[in-house]
Amino acid sequence: MADCFVANVRLDDGFAGGFLIDKGRIAALVTAGAPAPHAKQTIDGHGLLAIPALVDGHMHLDKTLAGGPWLAHQAEPQRMSRIETDKKIWPMLNRSVEQRATALLDWCIGHGTAHVRTHVDVDLEGGLSKLEGVLAAKASRAGEVTVEIVAFPQSGIMRCPGVADLLDRAVQSGADLVGGLDPLEIDRDVKGHLDTVFEIADHRAKGVDIHLHEPGEMGLHSLDQICERTTALGLGGKVTVSHGFCLGSAPPDKQKAMADRMAKAGVGLVTHGGAVWAVPPLELLHEHGVLVFAGNDDVRDTWNPIGNADMLERATMICWRADYRRDTQLRFAFELCSGHGARALGQPVPAIAVGADASFALVEAEHIPAAVAGHPRRELVLHRGRVVGRDGKRVPAAA
Amino acid sequence: MADCFVANVRLDDGFAGGFLIDKGRIAALVTAGAPAPHAKQTIDGHGLLAIPALVDGHMHLDKTLAGGPWLAHQAEPQRMSRIETDKKIWPMLNRSVEQRATALLDWCIGHGTAHVRTHVDVDLEGGLSKLEGVLAAKASRAGEVTVEIVAFPQSGIMRCPGVADLLDRAVQSGADLVGGLDPLEIDRDVKGHLDTVFEIADHRAKGVDIHLHEPGEMGLHSLDQICERTTALGLGGKVTVSHGFCLGSAPPDKQKAMADRMAKAGVGLVTHGGAVWAVPPLELLHEHGVLVFAGNDDVRDTWNPIGNADMLERATMICWRADYRRDTQLRFAFELCSGHGARALGQPVPAIAVGADASFALVEAEHIPAAVAGHPRRELVLHRGRVVGRDGKRVPAAA
Repeated sequence: MADCFVANVRLDDGFAGGFLIDKGRIAALVTAGAPAPHAKQTIDGHGLLAIPALVDGHMHLDKTLAGGPWLAHQAEPQRMSRIETDKKIWPMLNRSVEQRATALLDWCIGHGTAHVRTHVDVDLEGGLSKLEGVLAAKASRAGEVTVEIVAFPQSGIMRCPGVADLLDRAVQSGADLVGGLDPLEIDRDVKGHLDTVFEIADHRAKGVDIHLHEPGEMGLHSLDQICERTTALGLGGKVTVSHGFCLGSAPPDKQKAMADRMAKAGVGLVTHGGAVWAVPPLELLHEHGVLVFAGNDDVRDTWNPIGNADMLERATMICWRADYRRDTQLRFAFELCSGHGARALGQPVPAIAVGADASFALVEAEHIPAAVAGHPRRELVLHRGRVVGRDGKRVPAAA
Repeated sequence: MADCFVANVRLDDGFAGGFLIDKGRIAALVTAGAPAPHAKQTIDGHGLLAIPALVDGHMHLDKTLAGGPWLAHQAEPQRMSRIETDKKIWPMLNRSVEQRATALLDWCIGHGTAHVRTHVDVDLEGGLSKLEGVLAAKASRAGEVTVEIVAFPQSGIMRCPGVADLLDRAVQSGADLVGGLDPLEIDRDVKGHLDTVFEIADHRAKGVDIHLHEPGEMGLHSLDQICERTTALGLGGKVTVSHGFCLGSAPPDKQKAMADRMAKAGVGLVTHGGAVWAVPPLELLHEHGVLVFAGNDDVRDTWNPIGNADMLERATMICWRADYRRDTQLRFAFELCSGHGARALGQPVPAIAVGADASFALVEAEHIPAAVAGHPRRELVLHRGRVVGRDGKRVPAAA
């Protein structure tokens, strides 16, 4: 007998009926009106729409203050002030990295996020302690969400001798990718920074994800250098640029040329939608063959207090910011927050189909565009066949 | 005996206890631990935070598709295409203005919005029919939300002879303000358009609210002309500019000069936070004495499918877009969506204090900044002492 039957649900393609779930996967789609199959458990879907699992391609689990007392934002607007302010605040937090990261993962789970890529600071002050905390959080939520970790040199590499070794140790200690950031702005050494990042990735057979906030021609230069190294080392498909704001303000011909360069090199882009900066030309990048996906970035943390970790709301915000109004655009925004993110994270593309992981959420919406337009609460969340969220919140496993 | 006691709630200032409510107003704040007063009804607040009522300063109740079937967005990006597309779509909608406007008001009520200013199209094709529909919706939700109506010449005035008379009739038929839009871009006659709008407002002793999307120097010129007429007619405090995107892209010295001019003239500004356009300098305008407030603008409508009418989420989006991170800024964003909007609409400023309207919502948050950061669901909404919303949705009055 199958494990579970979720009755009375709908799909974006018009299907109405139920999902038979066994061993964490969808075993059958049963059309409404057909006899309900026998299962150990039946869940009433109340006619809600099932949407595929969400994917958050850019988080900072180690920085969050989720689940604990509010801390008023203290840093000045410059990136270096935020880096330094963190170092003052962190020793005073009386909750561990594991506690805080777990609380934020719980927010993700409640919103129907199945996969997360998080950056974790690796620096001289903290060593690998934050990585250890996030690894513990990841382990404590295994079976509810999968977590991929980028060893992130938030304070720079070349300006902090010793960090390169820490990054190398991090990817031998549980980190899945090597990170980097703004090689001109932070290290003031694009060659040294990128050579180091790519050398570790190449040596340890890992992927790369580099924060690139650098504006204008500065950012385009760094992006070009990232593409060059990706091609030279044959790392295509394993390299991501986070943000890439420089693409948003570039003139159209440069946007197209860089989109071609990124597509040929196999360099993807993850976005949170831009906020104050110009949004990268997401549709253009996608049309040129660049793997584009989305993430929430800072959520209730020492860098930014705003956010709730909801990737469906992120899709809404991307639409609002990028001026997406047509159904095709709303669907594209959803893909940025689901399928495209899964492709980037090397996960099976979320789908509600026979044989796929039974990872989905139920929402009150007509179809995917309507779900993106209003990001209704996740009434129920299943992860690999198990109920992990209800009413927008994680539900602990039954004892 | 008082009507109601809402027990076990908190306020932003640290108060913990209950609110005694009588005849729609707050009769007493009762500190936790004090004996619970007698009341006809007691509601358990479950330790939630009470936030003052929200105010939506810019809606289009007549354009919405809320509550009905999804309609894929059809218009081209230009404003004129959206105006013309509406005229093709509207005759085919099989739900009345009243039905659609009521459905959107219900979304507002469920999110804790107590006051709405809506624009209603007045044009040659529809005459005053949309005004009549919105007036009916307003009447059907009296006691749950107050609605202020702007007679809005969406298709222009000078290019559509007869609209001026319709606007004049509209404000004699239930509209509270005279609207206008983009006098250079739509009517190509800033003098004719503004003279007409202000003459009707002056003659009928009404306020003015003018959509101004015009960019750059074009918009600044129109804004200057609006200030001039406001001063000349002594309409200070009764005139609003909607959007004012031109302010967002102006150089700082022009922003400051225009802020001074608006403050002296008594011209306010309502914003949705900018989306694709530069956000007007909201803090600077406020510091210069301009009444700045916020609204959702299009919600699930023929102009834009995005949105859910939640003004607390609008506060979040404004923070994200304007890069507000400090507590003072998060509080300012809340005021844009509550107190400042009430000032603009001539309503009592929402407050949870003895003598004030018992209009508030309960949310799971530490204080106002935390509520803005994550815009949690409204667990319970009271309007003038009556429960009107629960779990983010309107609840019809008990029979």
